[in-house]
Amino acid sequence: MSRIPVIEMFGPTIQGEGAVIGVKTMFVRTYGCDYRCGWCDSAFTWDGSAKDKVTMLAPQEILDGLLELAGDNFNCVTISGGNPALIGEAMGEFISLLHERGIQAAIETQGSRWQDWFHEVDVLTISPKPPSSGMQTDWDKLDEIMHRVAGNGKAAHSLKVVVFNQEDYEYARKVHFRYPEVPLFLQPGNDNVTEEGDISGRLLKRLEWLFGQVIADPQMNRARVLPQLHALIWHNKRGK
Amino acid sequence: MSRIPVIEMFGPTIQGEGAVIGVKTMFVRTYGCDYRCGWCDSAFTWDGSAKDKVTMLAPQEILDGLLELAGDNFNCVTISGGNPALIGEAMGEFISLLHERGIQAAIETQGSRWQDWFHEVDVLTISPKPPSSGMQTDWDKLDEIMHRVAGNGKAAHSLKVVVFNQEDYEYARKVHFRYPEVPLFLQPGNDNVTEEGDISGRLLKRLEWLFGQVIADPQMNRARVLPQLHALIWHNKRGK
Repeated sequence: MSRIPVIEMFGPTIQGEGAVIGVKTMFVRTYGCDYRCGWCDSAFTWDGSAKDKVTMLAPQEILDGLLELAGDNFNCVTISGGNPALIGEAMGEFISLLHERGIQAAIETQGSRWQDWFHEVDVLTISPKPPSSGMQTDWDKLDEIMHRVAGNGKAAHSLKVVVFNQEDYEYARKVHFRYPEVPLFLQPGNDNVTEEGDISGRLLKRLEWLFGQVIADPQMNRARVLPQLHALIWHNKRGK
Repeated sequence: MSRIPVIEMFGPTIQGEGAVIGVKTMFVRTYGCDYRCGWCDSAFTWDGSAKDKVTMLAPQEILDGLLELAGDNFNCVTISGGNPALIGEAMGEFISLLHERGIQAAIETQGSRWQDWFHEVDVLTISPKPPSSGMQTDWDKLDEIMHRVAGNGKAAHSLKVVVFNQEDYEYARKVHFRYPEVPLFLQPGNDNVTEEGDISGRLLKRLEWLFGQVIADPQMNRARVLPQLHALIWHNKRGK
């Protein structure tokens, strides 16, 4: 039976960002990523530093773990990583188990790999990484994924671009012009993901800057700008 | 020709709250309210203190004013008050003018009055006021409005309840149980709408408290909790 490498499960908490900002959700974080973003806020999911925390779980075991943590106190599960799109059939099985219980599945992935179970996801966030990440976007692959996702009437899908600087903002514009029909969320980046203490002042300054970019740009009238609420409240703490 | 009492027009800015949080929008504020909420953050729209700022404008004049302010740098107009649902046919005409230009209309009202143009609104937010406001909800009237709105396939409508304390939270639950199919947004109240300087720390504490209420409450799994982004960034300043 196929299993999923899980490095972290927690919740219930509130989704802090993106299309379902403000929704109560559990989090499941898969291990492994095909990217190595310089500013990744979850580098422990791929840099080896927490490899001993990874457990290989069957889909039913993940669901059991979530129910043990939270009982009936959730109806959304957010699957993040790492890149959960590295996982094949087992993830599809997990999503089916959630749906059997009337629980929604939200997924975040960078759009570098396709999986057939994308069609089953209730809230699919494709988050291509801007230049500041140090990664290169494979536009042909992203085109293919956006094309396949658009053919699906069910999943609400959106794009999300994290913006650290002007070059990233230009990248976000390029994404918007390439896929104009897809809702686009812009999110200011967190420049220091290990700083301790209250970082809300710094993050709000970046949000204000990004607001200003979009407010001044008539070609971005339909882009939405949102912060990471969890980082405003719980700062750089993990598992919140 | 019928006219609309306008006390304020500004933008473009970013919508800071509710269903379209993060969207670039212009604001039009109408004068006059059937409520007198104790904590109203726009009391100048009804308390007489800014009555000399009110202008009676034809729908086309409002549109002209917005275009003069912002050119083509927006495609959403948020109409707030006061209670814009006090305005009859002229508001319907204004919404038609927006639609002719491909501009969306978002409206916020407390759900105390019906207008036929509710059916034409793209984003309709019904925001009944909790006990801390000092107002009494007319549940029969609200039932009627929610019933009529539900019969409309076009408008995306949602409920929003501002929560200052435990009693308000119980009120929000009652609203949710009464209209379970309608998306519900909870928003922490701003206890002091005249305080100067940076109030983000205080507001984030209230958001954390409200997160905690919903996180602990299995009957509120589908409620969404969102802050007022504009107040986090621009504090109590008006016209932002």
